[in-house]
Amino acid sequence: MRPSDQLRDVQIQRGYLESNPASVLYRCGKTIVLCTASLESSVPPWLEGKGKGWVTAEYNMLPGSTSPRKRRDRSGKVDGRTTEIQRLIGRSLRAVIDLHKLGENSIVVDCDVLQADGGTRTASITGGFIALAIAVEQAVAGSSVGNGPLTDSVAAISVGLHGDEVKLDLDYELDSAADVDMNVIMTGSGRFVEIQGTGEEATFDDDQLAKMLKLAKKGIADLTKLQQQELSR
Amino acid sequence: MRPSDQLRDVQIQRGYLESNPASVLYRCGKTIVLCTASLESSVPPWLEGKGKGWVTAEYNMLPGSTSPRKRRDRSGKVDGRTTEIQRLIGRSLRAVIDLHKLGENSIVVDCDVLQADGGTRTASITGGFIALAIAVEQAVAGSSVGNGPLTDSVAAISVGLHGDEVKLDLDYELDSAADVDMNVIMTGSGRFVEIQGTGEEATFDDDQLAKMLKLAKKGIADLTKLQQQELSR
Amino acid sequence: MRPSDQLRDVQIQRGYLESNPASVLYRCGKTIVLCTASLESSVPPWLEGKGKGWVTAEYNMLPGSTSPRKRRDRSGKVDGRTTEIQRLIGRSLRAVIDLHKLGENSIVVDCDVLQADGGTRTASITGGFIALAIAVEQAVAGSSVGNGPLTDSVAAISVGLHGDEVKLDLDYELDSAADVDMNVIMTGSGRFVEIQGTGEEATFDDDQLAKMLKLAKKGIADLTKLQQQELSR
Amino acid sequence: MRPSDQLRDVQIQRGYLESNPASVLYRCGKTIVLCTASLESSVPPWLEGKGKGWVTAEYNMLPGSTSPRKRRDRSGKVDGRTTEIQRLIGRSLRAVIDLHKLGENSIVVDCDVLQADGGTRTASITGGFIALAIAVEQAVAGSSVGNGPLTDSVAAISVGLHGDEVKLDLDYELDSAADVDMNVIMTGSGRFVEIQGTGEEATFDDDQLAKMLKLAKKGIADLTKLQQQELSR
Amino acid sequence: MRPSDQLRDVQIQRGYLESNPASVLYRCGKTIVLCTASLESSVPPWLEGKGKGWVTAEYNMLPGSTSPRKRRDRSGKVDGRTTEIQRLIGRSLRAVIDLHKLGENSIVVDCDVLQADGGTRTASITGGFIALAIAVEQAVAGSSVGNGPLTDSVAAISVGLHGDEVKLDLDYELDSAADVDMNVIMTGSGRFVEIQGTGEEATFDDDQLAKMLKLAKKGIADLTKLQQQELSR
Amino acid sequence: MRPSDQLRDVQIQRGYLESNPASVLYRCGKTIVLCTASLESSVPPWLEGKGKGWVTAEYNMLPGSTSPRKRRDRSGKVDGRTTEIQRLIGRSLRAVIDLHKLGENSIVVDCDVLQADGGTRTASITGGFIALAIAVEQAVAGSSVGNGPLTDSVAAISVGLHGDEVKLDLDYELDSAADVDMNVIMTGSGRFVEIQGTGEEATFDDDQLAKMLKLAKKGIADLTKLQQQELSR
Repeated sequence: MRPSDQLRDVQIQRGYLESNPASVLYRCGKTIVLCTASLESSVPPWLEGKGKGWVTAEYNMLPGSTSPRKRRDRSGKVDGRTTEIQRLIGRSLRAVIDLHKLGENSIVVDCDVLQADGGTRTASITGGFIALAIAVEQAVAGSSVGNGPLTDSVAAISVGLHGDEVKLDLDYELDSAADVDMNVIMTGSGRFVEIQGTGEEATFDDDQLAKMLKLAKKGIADLTKLQQQELSR
Repeated sequence: MRPSDQLRDVQIQRGYLESNPASVLYRCGKTIVLCTASLESSVPPWLEGKGKGWVTAEYNMLPGSTSPRKRRDRSGKVDGRTTEIQRLIGRSLRAVIDLHKLGENSIVVDCDVLQADGGTRTASITGGFIALAIAVEQAVAGSSVGNGPLTDSVAAISVGLHGDEVKLDLDYELDSAADVDMNVIMTGSGRFVEIQGTGEEATFDDDQLAKMLKLAKKGIADLTKLQQQELSR
Repeated sequence: MRPSDQLRDVQIQRGYLESNPASVLYRCGKTIVLCTASLESSVPPWLEGKGKGWVTAEYNMLPGSTSPRKRRDRSGKVDGRTTEIQRLIGRSLRAVIDLHKLGENSIVVDCDVLQADGGTRTASITGGFIALAIAVEQAVAGSSVGNGPLTDSVAAISVGLHGDEVKLDLDYELDSAADVDMNVIMTGSGRFVEIQGTGEEATFDDDQLAKMLKLAKKGIADLTKLQQQELSR
Repeated sequence: MRPSDQLRDVQIQRGYLESNPASVLYRCGKTIVLCTASLESSVPPWLEGKGKGWVTAEYNMLPGSTSPRKRRDRSGKVDGRTTEIQRLIGRSLRAVIDLHKLGENSIVVDCDVLQADGGTRTASITGGFIALAIAVEQAVAGSSVGNGPLTDSVAAISVGLHGDEVKLDLDYELDSAADVDMNVIMTGSGRFVEIQGTGEEATFDDDQLAKMLKLAKKGIADLTKLQQQELSR
Repeated sequence: MRPSDQLRDVQIQRGYLESNPASVLYRCGKTIVLCTASLESSVPPWLEGKGKGWVTAEYNMLPGSTSPRKRRDRSGKVDGRTTEIQRLIGRSLRAVIDLHKLGENSIVVDCDVLQADGGTRTASITGGFIALAIAVEQAVAGSSVGNGPLTDSVAAISVGLHGDEVKLDLDYELDSAADVDMNVIMTGSGRFVEIQGTGEEATFDDDQLAKMLKLAKKGIADLTKLQQQELSR
Repeated sequence: MRPSDQLRDVQIQRGYLESNPASVLYRCGKTIVLCTASLESSVPPWLEGKGKGWVTAEYNMLPGSTSPRKRRDRSGKVDGRTTEIQRLIGRSLRAVIDLHKLGENSIVVDCDVLQADGGTRTASITGGFIALAIAVEQAVAGSSVGNGPLTDSVAAISVGLHGDEVKLDLDYELDSAADVDMNVIMTGSGRFVEIQGTGEEATFDDDQLAKMLKLAKKGIADLTKLQQQELSR
């Protein structure tokens, strides 16, 4: 059994699609997310002529990613959970990019979940950042993280509270059992980008909060190393 | 000028609509939200036959609530921000209710913003709780907070980081200037229900997080008193 | 009991929202409508370059305005009744404005029903005219009704036929009992703008028509006085 | 030139579609409407178990019915004009039927405009009534107008005010020139079902109203005879 | 009983609508389709500035065209069958037109089915071609088939396999009984434009394919003669 | 360069998703389709109580599957091409299954295109059949192709006409250059399930048709062998 302070096994395959180098197959335990970053030489209407670019994300679960099968989102109404997740991914990625240095270009990061076993939103951020970094390198020749539009890296992890025990990187089973679920998004340099702690039908106190944040920092540090390894290949 | 650790002026008018005692006009500075709780003697399909009830919320800004006028949401696609807010309100209210004690009944809390000047989501939670409490009293005769379905009260407040200064209860102007915006939802007994800290194009560290949480607790304590006064009338 | 030729008690509160002077809280018995007029310095595409402006209206009932709660209109399909009512409000307001004198500007009059007890469409017209007049005054300095874009005032009232008895200003209970329901919209100077007489599963003859029109004229004259008082403050 | 108190040439072809005897091709000048009544052995959910039936109408203009071509209504949003018209047709037809005598059956009257030259809504009512009467005869053997579910016949006509002149049965050209447009729906026995008088950017007085109603009555009487002839074949 | 290699009775009425000469009422047995071609002096955005035109088709069945009544397509989602059919009609018509000779103009061919008894898609192509040819003659003066934008004529017919017997021009009853249904679209000069052979829950072999194609060619030749007669009037 | 009668390199990976054995990653040249078959113990409403099952398919291209990025289908309107393709996949799979032997169960075959380089619909059928066969084996223990619900196998391939040359298995480049594009779907035993030959702005004659069909048969025979190998592992 996995220790409660250890990440699931992570495998990262960059350039998964021949047609797009900025495509990353990100596996974290049984969770599999295909992240692709696409560069477009335009910006949304409300940014036109401002000399800066834009980064956005779209998130989707394939019907076969869950059991029982998830119905395909074709009603014209993206469900609330999906909307929240893709907004979170977009904000997280934008926290580490200087949009002015991107010029009037957009990058869309698509995160399509092929198999879901908990942690799909944090996998999307961690894997999506790698796809983004590759796309930025292509858009701005000679750039790298910290040297060009990207000011830092970003990664995300979940922590949970089950009774009084704190656990890192919740898979579906752990997530279902947790009283409180917290997603922490941090930069490679150790600053918070976003904290979302939620106790559906439960609450938590200061001590528990402190424990969860401490564990999250450890997880983020581990993920940051994996990102650096993959990007330096 | 308002001190940075002080709430805006709050006015609460319960029974605002003659046709529904569980209607609350909640004012917080210039922000005005009409919260109404409606009891329905049925539950959503996925809860039928489980002997428990449901609480949900809907949030909407009236077109005239902002300047320039906000377009009415009639495209069939509720925008992402609205979806996030109403899911947050619903989760927050459900954190302080024992749904089994509600029987197979639903309560919908509608939060319609008549005038928006920052803090509409936190006003919706704080005012919406009062409407909910009145509706619960009607549904379960003789019940009150702590004695019946409601296990505690819940309130919400925003805190912001501007440079290195921390501010309580952001109005629109303060919110626009803030680098980091954090919404804190807590029970009357002082436990966290939800923490959402977001730095769009900014980040924060441990110290700043601690300062923001401390200030939020003070604000929640003040709001809890106001809720108790109104409910004991 | 209210005499059959007398209006319900009317209360008008202009400047209800601090952020918009052209906001009017209109109460007529238990019916409460918030009317706000918003000026936009553009016209719909089909009017561009024609040197004239546009006035339109949107009507909506808040979920808490009725008991049982009215479902929020979020399907992307505005229901037929709502469409009819907002088209009627728009036509009525346009009947008393010289759109050429408005320049290429639009005014949207939002009528949001906070509490519904019959007569919401006529309240929206009568109250909406006041909001419109304030917005026009702001758009065209020095203008007033009869002197500037507004050529006249407009007000609306319902009359009903119950058996052979004619009644003015139907509340929900009277409206439900009526065999024939007629909405009459007239200018302050006493000309018809629109007559809509409908007998769902009932019919009416010439005499009954004459009686209903006579009573409606009395009601319109009373409302016109109230509008003038409020606008001359 | 047609006298101002005379109807356009009317041609009625019942049983136009071999597959449905209750199909009527109704021509009025150049306006052509195909009216078909379809019987369904069920009622809308809100009428189930009440022992009465329902009559409703749908109205649609074919793309080739106007020049330039009218875009097909496939956006999922039926436009406001269409909604108003089909609600009017439905109410008018229901005014002459005793729904209890229909049993728990529904009749849908479809009015599809093949060619539009003004007066499509009144043609739909006048022609739609014939289709309805045939369908009722089939549903309730031995019934006829006045003897069975149908208590009377119903027909509709437009009248217009152009300057101070009053005109009957407006085609597109006359309708465009008219200051005030009034649609009058009456029973065969001469009672009003609905009056809709509208002055878009114009108003009218008592005398003008009286003249318009008088002319409308003449037109309705003429149409009623044509309906009786067709139904007695 | 109709021989298995003979078409149903075809009747073609050009100029059916006074307002548009390019309107054709096409009857084939009990199937009735109203085809109207409308010329628009613009092209879709993706063709702008390329010096060529566009031809497209829309297909629709009226509610009264089938028994039981077909629900009107107002959900905003055109059903799959309708989409397939109108794409097929458009491709078939474009196969015989030189879009460069049309200039930057569009022609929309609307095919509205008034009565459906099998073969509505093939009737739409055969009748739609006549409407198109009339519209092209109007758009490009002096042009005719083979001399101007239209390089050839096009017609369509169905053939079916029932057991081992092959049948031409399936009406609803024959179509329901057929194991394999094949639609063949050919030019007047005898070349294939499109072949669609489908065995829902059945399959076919080379011999059967050969027989079906042979019979289809005979049917197309007969239809081509009828088209030529109508266009030479 | 690949000979014109040879398939692209095909790679099939069954059980690609740990959570569902009936998941197949199908590669054909650069085209990659993830096919997953999901069993549901219910049937669509129109099949209830008839003692037979249902097989349907859904097709989708991921945004990153093409360059430039394909917009995600979230408008509520599935585009016409997608609708046609998924209807074709469904019909093709149903041609080789005895739905009565499936009992009242449904199988949904999802075909999600990860990378698109031509032939995605034929890959979806060929790969989708393998996923279907695995799901059927699980649903009906002891069954295999020809022994149980599946009466035969099914595969699909495209052939094209470029000038007078015929080519097998068109990739994107070949497809764009082809004058005529034909998709042929056949059973493992060599019978036609569906033929769709389309010449957008081109036509073809009998000889060309014969050549295309001959080449398609060779391709189908090769694919059938690959399917058998994979299923016998």
